[in-house]
Order: sequence, then structure tokens, then C-alpha cells
Amino acid sequence: MSLPPQDHEFLPPYRLLLGPGPSMVHPRVLHALSQPLVGHLDPLFLDLMNDIQALLRATFQTNNEFTIALSGTGSAGMEAVIANLIEPGDRALVGVNGVFGTRLATMIERQGGVPLRIDASWGDIIPAEAVREQLARSAPVKAVVLVHAETSTGARQPLEDVGALCRAHGALLIVDAVTSLGGIPVEVDAWGIDACYSGTQKCLSCPPGLAPLTMSPRAMEAIRQRQTPCHSWYLDLALIADYWNDRSRAYHHTAPISMLYALREALRLVQAEGREARFARHRLNSEALLAGLETLGLTPLPATEHRLPMLNCVTLPDRINDAAVRTRLLEDYGIEIGGGLGPLRGRVWRIGLMGESSREAHVLTLLGALEEIFAHHGWPAQPGRAVHAAVDIYTGSQPTTRRST
Amino acid sequence: MSLPPQDHEFLPPYRLLLGPGPSMVHPRVLHALSQPLVGHLDPLFLDLMNDIQALLRATFQTNNEFTIALSGTGSAGMEAVIANLIEPGDRALVGVNGVFGTRLATMIERQGGVPLRIDASWGDIIPAEAVREQLARSAPVKAVVLVHAETSTGARQPLEDVGALCRAHGALLIVDAVTSLGGIPVEVDAWGIDACYSGTQKCLSCPPGLAPLTMSPRAMEAIRQRQTPCHSWYLDLALIADYWNDRSRAYHHTAPISMLYALREALRLVQAEGREARFARHRLNSEALLAGLETLGLTPLPATEHRLPMLNCVTLPDRINDAAVRTRLLEDYGIEIGGGLGPLRGRVWRIGLMGESSREAHVLTLLGALEEIFAHHGWPAQPGRAVHAAVDIYTGSQPTTRRST
Repeated sequence: MSLPPQDHEFLPPYRLLLGPGPSMVHPRVLHALSQPLVGHLDPLFLDLMNDIQALLRATFQTNNEFTIALSGTGSAGMEAVIANLIEPGDRALVGVNGVFGTRLATMIERQGGVPLRIDASWGDIIPAEAVREQLARSAPVKAVVLVHAETSTGARQPLEDVGALCRAHGALLIVDAVTSLGGIPVEVDAWGIDACYSGTQKCLSCPPGLAPLTMSPRAMEAIRQRQTPCHSWYLDLALIADYWNDRSRAYHHTAPISMLYALREALRLVQAEGREARFARHRLNSEALLAGLETLGLTPLPATEHRLPMLNCVTLPDRINDAAVRTRLLEDYGIEIGGGLGPLRGRVWRIGLMGESSREAHVLTLLGALEEIFAHHGWPAQPGRAVHAAVDIYTGSQPTTRRST
Repeated sequence: MSLPPQDHEFLPPYRLLLGPGPSMVHPRVLHALSQPLVGHLDPLFLDLMNDIQALLRATFQTNNEFTIALSGTGSAGMEAVIANLIEPGDRALVGVNGVFGTRLATMIERQGGVPLRIDASWGDIIPAEAVREQLARSAPVKAVVLVHAETSTGARQPLEDVGALCRAHGALLIVDAVTSLGGIPVEVDAWGIDACYSGTQKCLSCPPGLAPLTMSPRAMEAIRQRQTPCHSWYLDLALIADYWNDRSRAYHHTAPISMLYALREALRLVQAEGREARFARHRLNSEALLAGLETLGLTPLPATEHRLPMLNCVTLPDRINDAAVRTRLLEDYGIEIGGGLGPLRGRVWRIGLMGESSREAHVLTLLGALEEIFAHHGWPAQPGRAVHAAVDIYTGSQPTTRRST
């Protein structure tokens, strides 16, 4: 209980955040965070909550009334959806091809539900055909749960055909869009998604701490029809709906005011850039990065058509010492990239180009630093080749795609 | 899905926050919020997590190894403690004398536990004698759950004698210190508290969004001995212990980085002021406020010896129009105070003098504004008398207690 030695202010150094999140935060968002507080029941703050709901609807491409930012991180969004939609005994089909599918299966079990796993190798996707077969074989199924962007492997799960399949079998479609929202299309209404959650610290480029979340009327009806109350009071979406609803505003908890300031500004930046421009930027920078990395012998884990542009998961040749490179990147260059999780530990890097982190300058910086480190270790790499490969991609692209906000 | 009209930056006006939270935030804390991010696994951030644990141990007056800031608001802290310590069938004695005792009973039920309520009138406390009788009558009891500072009524629950009582009956002592921590003594080890949670937006004067939380070795052992897994994965304290533990640092979720920057700085301010000085400041400003309010016919709800200095709950004479005054305070003076909840709606005001909000200047500002509004409405009040009564208290006090940080 002695007074601890925290006698100095924490003044973080500049970090170039190219890991699996958090991503870089725009100065306008940092500025929003530092604004003085208003009360969480202040009419001005209630307006801000309305603004965020409207901005999130545009971002999720949905008309769902229940579209909010939950007061917890992306994992709280995952738990809220599972805890509210899965009752004891409910069967839920869940795709497991990485850390987050595994986590979803665990959460379903903890709610007393029965996860019916469709397993795939890490880096692969869950084939629509497998979902179709499982749905036919396992009826009744309460929900199909898929991870749109598997952050542990860099795989993009196709979703276009799953919604209709779910409706045909009376199942809800639950989608984890933690890493995808704001970087690739997430079409909640068009794809027939019933529950979709995300995190703020990925392609929305806001600090971590909130979980954007949208629920279809069908999903809200399922919550109203529950036989048992949700185990969680904090994440009870019926209560949270009454708090965010403009007509009721029933006190539930004290919203994280400063974080919501930040999210509003981050979403404004997303809207100002425009969807197509933002997605094109993410694609281009990923293409340039991968072109450079391949000259260094680093190859993407997922198949070409299933690669996420914001989470570039590349396998390491045996000669590369994972920890040594990442330590040098962080200590000498201030650059963070991510290592592998679970079975991929030590075998892959996860390089995030999310939101503000997805910039031409950042790609060139990272490739240059890697070239230098590789040369220092004497690993075969032709100096300048990686940067050159990226430059080739950029010079062949449309200038408008390369513009920064 | 049309682009919403959020075409402007949100620039909040200056508000004097004298409600039940959030409280005023020190400029140093706002500055910490606006610092650029480092990764949540960056060695620098892991050091910051250690700093926060040390600072929180000093604030909670505990040596508990498990002393952390949970990634959710104070209500998430409440839920985490209940969800981890109460298993299906467990009986828990819970004091219910306001909104938060009621909420605790609900949460116990949702975990499948059996809440044994000790009810008291709103504004009263739960007598130790009633706890003793219930414990003797209802064995076995897994936990006794008490709200130290009932934010809905302004009552301070005495806790000094309850810990020994709980140990004698093999029950854990769970304490809600959301509003008390940092404003009055909270002595976790000395009082034999096994689980204690708080919020950041009250007397710690940090924005809302985190829940400081400490658990005794006895409480952690109870978690390890659970027969069933905790329903919540997000709030599973065994997993969260492995994430915050310096030796394991097992990835669980992405910590709310910016909010933790802010909390570190807020806790440094708490330590710099010193416990006794801080508590004396809270007492003095409350005394001065109440002296002024009594000249306006507003009398405190709880008995003298059970009043919280940071949450001054006063009853309104019939002639006072609750909503009209609070609206004028907010719109004309930028001052927020709180109204009543539940059965106290329209009948009381809850005036928060928490952390940075507990300042002599703020007390005088509020009393002056109330005098003006009362005069405007023609309610009997002798102009200048309220401010004068407060000034009398201040001039009779020790000058050191009045100093600001």
C-alpha cells in the first residue's frame, strides 16, 4: 500500500501502429477525446447519441433502429449478441477457422447453448455449402454465426449467400465485423444480417473501448420472445435499447462520454472519405504491401480471393526469427506489427493496414525498415526490391485512390 | 441510410457538473486522453497497466494482487463481481435501500442466485444488526452485498463491523464503492472487504468507461472453486486476472488504451493531494453547500451521521418546481445537478460534489444561481443568505482544506 512510484506523466512515444489493432487515430479524433465533459443525460449529449446512431447506420448500411455503440470493447459486442440471442438449449451453427470463431463457440456454451461447429483450417473460409448442409441436417437452428474478418488469419468470409439460407431455415444470421467494418463492404440489410457487431480500434480508427452494434427487427423480436431473462444485466439489449431510444431514454448505465465524442468524429471521417474511396484505399495499400513482402519471401496465408486488405497475414520462411524482427521494428523504428496467435504463433505476421494506418507512406516505411533489418541479419533480400515492388503498384494505380484525408 | 447531417465537429460548451456523475475532469486528465496510442501489448503499455494496479491498490487501501480497471463502466464492475462470485443456487444477502441495491438483487437473480433482501427506506442505511440476524437465520450465505454510497439517496453505509460478521459466517463481503472511492475512506483490507468495485466518473474525476475493481485472495479462491463456468466470458475474472497479471499477460481483449491513460493521470492527482486532504475537502464543501441549501428550505434526506459528502441528496419543499429549476440551471448557467430516481423523482435533488467538482468556487456558484432563480420565481428566500451561510463555513475552516490542486 506504499505510494507507488508513478511520479511522472505518461507521455507515449510516436508509434506506427501496423498490428491487428489498435490502428492509428486521426488527430481530429484525439482532439475530440480531450473536450470537456457534458452529462450523459444532457440534451446535447442525447443529440450526440442520435448522431452516432445515424452515422453507424450509414456505416453498417442498415435501416435498423437498434444501431448503437455498446459500452465495452469489441468482445463485449460479441458477448452481448450471443448472451441475448442464445438461450439455454438453443443450437447455433458456428464457423470455427481461427481465434474468434473459437471464442464464439465458447460464449455460446457459456450461455447454455449448443454450438454446432463447422471447422475449417486456419486461413481457410467456411464454405456456404457446409453451412447449407449443416442447416439441413441440424434443424432447428436458432442462429448461424460467422466471422466476417478473422483477425487471427486474415481470411475474409463471403457472406452474400448466407442470409437467404438462414431465412429459409428460420435461423438468425450473426456476423462478427470487428475487423472488417469501415475497410471492406459490410452490407447488413442487403446481406440479410440480423446481428452485427464491430470494434472501434480497427478500420474505424478510434481508440478501443466501444462496440458498434446493430440488430434487425427479427433479432429484437427474438429477444422479446426469450423464455428466460438474459444472464447479463449490463449487456441486456432490451434495456440498452430503451436507453438509446430517443423516445424513452430510460437510464441504464452512464455512457462512456469521451469515447463517444471520439467515435462520432471517427465516423464523420469515415463518411467524409466515402465508402468506395475508403475501400479502394484499403485494397491498394494491401496490394502494394503484399507485393513488397513477397520479394522478401513472405507469402499471404489465405487464398487470393479471401484475403482481407486490412489484416495481411503472411507466413514466415524458416530463416526468419519472428521475435527478433518484431522487437527491432518496435525498438528501433517505433513500428508495431502483430505476431501469430494459437497454432500460428511464430509462423506468421499479421500486418494491419486499418483505417488511418492504411497509408502509402506507412507501407513504404515498413517495407524499408524490413529491408534494412533483413540485410542486417544477412537474410537473402535484394536491397530496394521490396520498396520498389510497392512503388510499382502505386505508380500503376489511380492517383485519386492514393489521396489522404 | 442517407448520409446523416453531422456536418460539424461536436464542440461541447463548458458545463459545471454537479450531478451524480460524471464529475469535472482535470485538464491534465483530458490531456492524457488526447495522447497518441501505443499498442495494448506494447511493453510501455504493460508498464502503464502495472502503474494503474499500484495506484489503485493505494486508492483502495489494499494489498490484493487482483486490483485492476475493468473495461466497462461501474455497472460492469457490479456485474463482474456478481457473475463471478454468485453461482446458480447461491444465497446472497443484499441490502436494498435505493436504486443500486435493487439492481444488485436483480443481477444476483439473473445469475441463478437467491437474493435475500434486507430492505430499508430510501435514505436510511442497512443496520449491522439486521445483517447479523439474517446471517444467523439464513446460513449458508455465500456473500453479503452492500452499497457503500447509495447514489440514489446520498446515504453512507457503515461497513466497519460487517467484515468480521461475514468471516464468522463464512460469507464473502461485496461492496459497491462506485460513488465513495476517492471521496471518503474506503479501507478494503482493514474492513475485510472481499470484492470492491467503483466507477471512474465519480470521485476519481476521470471520464466514465472503466470500473476499478479489487478482489481478495479469498474471493479469487471462490472463483477458482466454481462448479460451473461463469456465464460471462467478457467479464470472466479468472481470464482477466491472467491478462492483467505481469507474469502471464495472456491476451483476453483489447484494453481501452486512451481511457487507461486518463485513469492513470486521475489516480496520480488523487495520490498527489493525499487521502486526508481529499476527504477533508469533500467534507468541507458538503458542509458549506448544505448550510446554504438549508436557508433555501432544502433539507438533507439521510440522517446527519449517514450523509455522503460527495452526493448531497436534499428534499424539495412543495413550492419548488423541480424541472423548472434544473432546466434554468442548465440552460442559463451551464450547471448540471441531478434529479431524483424512482420513488424520489421530483422530490429530491442530488447535488454531486465529487472529486474535481468538490470546489469552494463551485459551491458558491451554485448557491448564487439558486438564489437568483428562487428570487425570479418569487419563492421565499432572503437574497444573499445562502451564499453567506456557505461563506460562514469556509471562513471558519482551516485554510489548507480549501486549497485546490
